Amino acid sequence: VIYLITPTYTRLEQKAELTRLSHTLMLVKNIHWIVIEDSESQTDLVARFLKQTGLNYTHLNVPTPAEFKLNMDDPNWLKPRGVLQRNAGLEWLRRNTSPRRQPGVVYFADDDNTYSLKLFDEMRFTKKVSVWPVGLVGYLRYEKPIVQNGKVIAWFTYWKPNRPFPMDMAGFAINLQLLHDHPEAAFTNSVQRGYQESTLLSGLKISQDDLEPKANMCSEVLVWHTRTEKSKTRNEDNMIRKYGRGSDPRVEV
Amino acid sequence: VIYLITPTYTRLEQKAELTRLSHTLMLVKNIHWIVIEDSESQTDLVARFLKQTGLNYTHLNVPTPAEFKLNMDDPNWLKPRGVLQRNAGLEWLRRNTSPRRQPGVVYFADDDNTYSLKLFDEMRFTKKVSVWPVGLVGYLRYEKPIVQNGKVIAWFTYWKPNRPFPMDMAGFAINLQLLHDHPEAAFTNSVQRGYQESTLLSGLKISQDDLEPKANMCSEVLVWHTRTEKSKTRNEDNMIRKYGRGSDPRVEV
Ligand SMILES: O=c1ccn([C@@H]2O[C@H](COP(=O)(O)OP(=O)(O)O)[C@@H](O)[C@H]2O)c(=O)[nH]1
Ligand SMILES: O=c1ccn([C@@H]2O[C@H](COP(=O)(O)OP(=O)(O)O)[C@@H](O)[C@H]2O)c(=O)[nH]1
Ligand SMILES: [Mn+2]
Ligand SMILES: [Mn+2]
Repeated sequence: VIYLITPTYTRLEQKAELTRLSHTLMLVKNIHWIVIEDSESQTDLVARFLKQTGLNYTHLNVPTPAEFKLNMDDPNWLKPRGVLQRNAGLEWLRRNTSPRRQPGVVYFADDDNTYSLKLFDEMRFTKKVSVWPVGLVGYLRYEKPIVQNGKVIAWFTYWKPNRPFPMDMAGFAINLQLLHDHPEAAFTNSVQRGYQESTLLSGLKISQDDLEPKANMCSEVLVWHTRTEKSKTRNEDNMIRKYGRGSDPRVEV
Repeated sequence: VIYLITPTYTRLEQKAELTRLSHTLMLVKNIHWIVIEDSESQTDLVARFLKQTGLNYTHLNVPTPAEFKLNMDDPNWLKPRGVLQRNAGLEWLRRNTSPRRQPGVVYFADDDNTYSLKLFDEMRFTKKVSVWPVGLVGYLRYEKPIVQNGKVIAWFTYWKPNRPFPMDMAGFAINLQLLHDHPEAAFTNSVQRGYQESTLLSGLKISQDDLEPKANMCSEVLVWHTRTEKSKTRNEDNMIRKYGRGSDPRVEV
């Protein structure tokens, strides 16, 4: 089974993002989608959405504490995003799976990225941690592990290249057994920008030598760190001013 | 058959966009995807991409003339987008289909929008022109036809509400027979902003009374006018300056 851990939060584009991600997942065999809302309670929108997909899923929620939460006008990179949500996914897996009976692979699938179907074939046979290139990230066309003789020997990345694992969350998957073997491994809101991935992998006692290069020795881009434009809705106010009413709040977008 | 007309153009996010759109289409029965590149010739990237999808498709191309083409820093709305490409799709349909033998419905599916699967069920039984709400468009949560007693009587829209058909390209589908009955109907680069949809529908001799409201009398949002952020790649130059080389151009993104 491939377990997909997807943090998500309420915003105008949320249902659209989850919709297209769900279509990708409908085409992948043997998956379990763990969707964790960044909220005080589970929303009806996400609950109804997940139900109608027909996918295997688990719906969780945990709010990001106010001090770590992005404000509307903050640049996106200012604070970590999805940290407690991904940890909630990891905890759920530790409590609800037993890899000896049912082996699994865990992947962090943000709701706004784009995934090729081939990516899931590649990650399915992860022994410890598998890695591959990620497109449209780090202000580069792609970032990727550099492979020589079947081993990761360096990283193609510009930003903070000296991190232990200078790669994006979308660039690796881990064997479920590792989570059980290292029950303390987790993400944290208290590390520097860019160190989430390294924190988790260090907690799992992974070294660079353990990494399994996929996607044809890391030569193919099979996942893209796409981001969706924030929708502007300034005409809602204009509608109210001019006609006395904006859009119907009962119409779910 | 549902014929989908998708204009597309070369940019960093193109393959990602086409990838997630193709996943949606793989889940829809009985479709034919007409992909028209805005280019002098068909690119290998799109040709290879389409082939590996396994979908029924036709690959066409026609360049937008320089005078109508957006420059890198132009705001998106400055010039019409996809006009000649959609017309090429319409011409292909007129030459290569015969609706009396094989009925069809035609929908304009931009490569960056998000489509629910239910949308295709709704449009499949279009007699002349069917219509429905579009989410995240017109600086509103949604725009939509207003329906009373099963008829479109007005429009929920703020921008240029007096257009004959004040709706987005994603908000309607047409019966294939209409294209054959009105061989001159087309889009054009020479109308005001916002008048593409109205120009085509007027060319098809459609009146508001002909419109068939779908999506539960236009009360459900089943398609979203999402837009993808332009990826910045300023670290490509930094890589060259610092290490003497940027990303490998042979790695397709
Ligand atoms: O306040 C937030 C912001 C983001 N996210 C989720 O965390 C992940 C990463 O966020 P985002 O895609 O905005 O960050 P990026 O990596 O694109 O900068 C996504 O699945 C979001 O839905 C969240 O749960 N709460
Ligand atoms: O120079 C261009 C710009 C856009 N498009 C295509 O035309 C459609 C509409 O463009 P876009 O989504 O950028 O416009 P929007 O409606 O989102 O403003 C999309 O399928 C694009 O791929 C094109 O063929 N050539
Ligand atoms: Mn993201
Ligand atoms: Mn668009």
